[in-house]
Amino acid sequence: MITLSVQLDQRSYPIYIGEDLLNRRELLVPHIAGRAFVVCAQSVAERYLPQVQRALGGIDHGTLLLPDGEQHKHLGTIDDVVGALIEQRFDRETTLIALGGGVVGDITGFAAASYQRGVPFVQIPTTLLAQVDSSVGGKTGVNHRLGKNMIGAFHQPRCVIADTATLGSLPDRELSSGLAEVIKYGAICDAEFFGWLEQHVDALLARDNAALSHAIARSCSNKAEIVAQDEREQGVRAILNLGHTFGHAIETETGYTTWTHGEAVAAGMCLAAEFSTRLGWLERGAQRRISDLISRARLPTAPPKIDAERFLAHMSRDKKARGDRINLVLLKAIGTAAVTHDYPLAELYGMLNRHAQG
Amino acid sequence: MITLSVQLDQRSYPIYIGEDLLNRRELLVPHIAGRAFVVCAQSVAERYLPQVQRALGGIDHGTLLLPDGEQHKHLGTIDDVVGALIEQRFDRETTLIALGGGVVGDITGFAAASYQRGVPFVQIPTTLLAQVDSSVGGKTGVNHRLGKNMIGAFHQPRCVIADTATLGSLPDRELSSGLAEVIKYGAICDAEFFGWLEQHVDALLARDNAALSHAIARSCSNKAEIVAQDEREQGVRAILNLGHTFGHAIETETGYTTWTHGEAVAAGMCLAAEFSTRLGWLERGAQRRISDLISRARLPTAPPKIDAERFLAHMSRDKKARGDRINLVLLKAIGTAAVTHDYPLAELYGMLNRHAQG
Repeated sequence: MITLSVQLDQRSYPIYIGEDLLNRRELLVPHIAGRAFVVCAQSVAERYLPQVQRALGGIDHGTLLLPDGEQHKHLGTIDDVVGALIEQRFDRETTLIALGGGVVGDITGFAAASYQRGVPFVQIPTTLLAQVDSSVGGKTGVNHRLGKNMIGAFHQPRCVIADTATLGSLPDRELSSGLAEVIKYGAICDAEFFGWLEQHVDALLARDNAALSHAIARSCSNKAEIVAQDEREQGVRAILNLGHTFGHAIETETGYTTWTHGEAVAAGMCLAAEFSTRLGWLERGAQRRISDLISRARLPTAPPKIDAERFLAHMSRDKKARGDRINLVLLKAIGTAAVTHDYPLAELYGMLNRHAQG
Repeated sequence: MITLSVQLDQRSYPIYIGEDLLNRRELLVPHIAGRAFVVCAQSVAERYLPQVQRALGGIDHGTLLLPDGEQHKHLGTIDDVVGALIEQRFDRETTLIALGGGVVGDITGFAAASYQRGVPFVQIPTTLLAQVDSSVGGKTGVNHRLGKNMIGAFHQPRCVIADTATLGSLPDRELSSGLAEVIKYGAICDAEFFGWLEQHVDALLARDNAALSHAIARSCSNKAEIVAQDEREQGVRAILNLGHTFGHAIETETGYTTWTHGEAVAAGMCLAAEFSTRLGWLERGAQRRISDLISRARLPTAPPKIDAERFLAHMSRDKKARGDRINLVLLKAIGTAAVTHDYPLAELYGMLNRHAQG
């Protein structure tokens, strides 16, 4: 087992990474204040909920199953979680436990941030994406019908338990989607890790536990280092959005259904790398290494055909935009990213237009 | 004008109290970061919104009118506020301004806490209750159908502008409701202020601006002192709930419509004083002074007839309850409160039963 500590003064917490951790009472119980309330994704309840309940042992607890899927990530579901807590008479001396993928983590985290103005919570992510992305940074929240993640809070978990055994049952497509974020960490700030990924992508796809543990730990420690510098997302943290502004445009256009988040980010990273090369920031060889690795991880390297005007409109609607300018995360090399809004818009339009023509 | 400073490290803010402050550009504008978005209660829009818009001068701003009333304080209204912000393309560089009573303040504050995980906000309360209660403490939030204020956040405003001129148009009943909270501050921690109130309650009812300013300032500074000791409501802050556990039971029983919050708190304070006397904590003369002042402020001194079992059930459902025990704020003297769950339940039942029989 690898234990990482996310350092945030007053609110530091551990991430436990390894195989078969769900049963480990000694990891979970010290982080439960008062009673416990498990919010669990329906898709994983049969397989993993009994293990977590066993780990809770004598601790009085309630459970609520949530349907899977991004379409349930809205305020109505927060209302449901709060309703279940009140009905089952869980007061503010309660620790919420999120068991499932990123959607359940985001919903449960925001419910914990908001229930009676804040109760503690623990994350037990069961997808690769949630293990490398939502476990660090304290971002919680839900979507509004007019925009993704528009309503939320920064709320740090008491601990995160990332059990690689839970990835054994993950559909291939979801595993690859998680790898998109893993590759992102290499691209933005860790060239050595990027090299390691080029050597181990097949082991990761084969769900080798040791390789997965290493990839998760390295992703989380990279993210933790960036977040520690910038907890409230004012500056450097923006580089975590590599591929995301392009990716959100793809997700918006395709209605968040045909493309997974990771697939959209993967294609978005290829666009960011291509644009970096067009601006003369990035060498063509580095751009090719990025798209090759993304392709080997069984992820798309190009967006679907979207009219360039529409693509830009989706991008500027994105919450990472400031005023009228679209901020972009671009690459100067593998392992070195920078945020800019200082680029010729015509060049961006031209690139998107070329992809629209296909 | 009186200026109070609420000291909370890193997030201190001023409260401006006085007559005709809404027009004062120099009070408002330094606290606006980026653009402004005014959320205004429909009932006061015609009268006060133009003044605030004038004070904003050249600052680009949007507005949204909200219907009045506690029944609109739910997550659906948060969804509406966020929808208006997105539609009018207000990004995270926006300061929300709450203009109206406590309901608009609570909704707008929680919308500000949650929109894109947090934007700044300014409070311009136009009721006495909101001026003395919601302006200090950073509590924001909405109701769930199963309980009041169940969903929310601690989010401090950038500044509060309490204009006593806005109280000129307040209905008598709402003025009295605000006085319930004012009297509460005297009762829990400020015997001298309680004496001042006994001398000036008629001036307050006559809406004398100087008397109102003094009462608001003294209430806010008392609250600020308590909150500064206990920002997250772990300990001493609980004394602010004098009368509230009884009061919430009255509000729950009567469906939050026939009694105002202040009226329920007033009757609740009388019950708390009576119970304190029954336990031998408080002298009978002090109990009488409390109910006399409440009566002179044109507030009820006894609850409606409610079956004692039901009353207790409502009280234990209240969020201030911990586990199975009902915490109560009781008085040891005028100006000295204490929180306890160490009292004979039969005694409490007996008192409530006597009121139920009337």
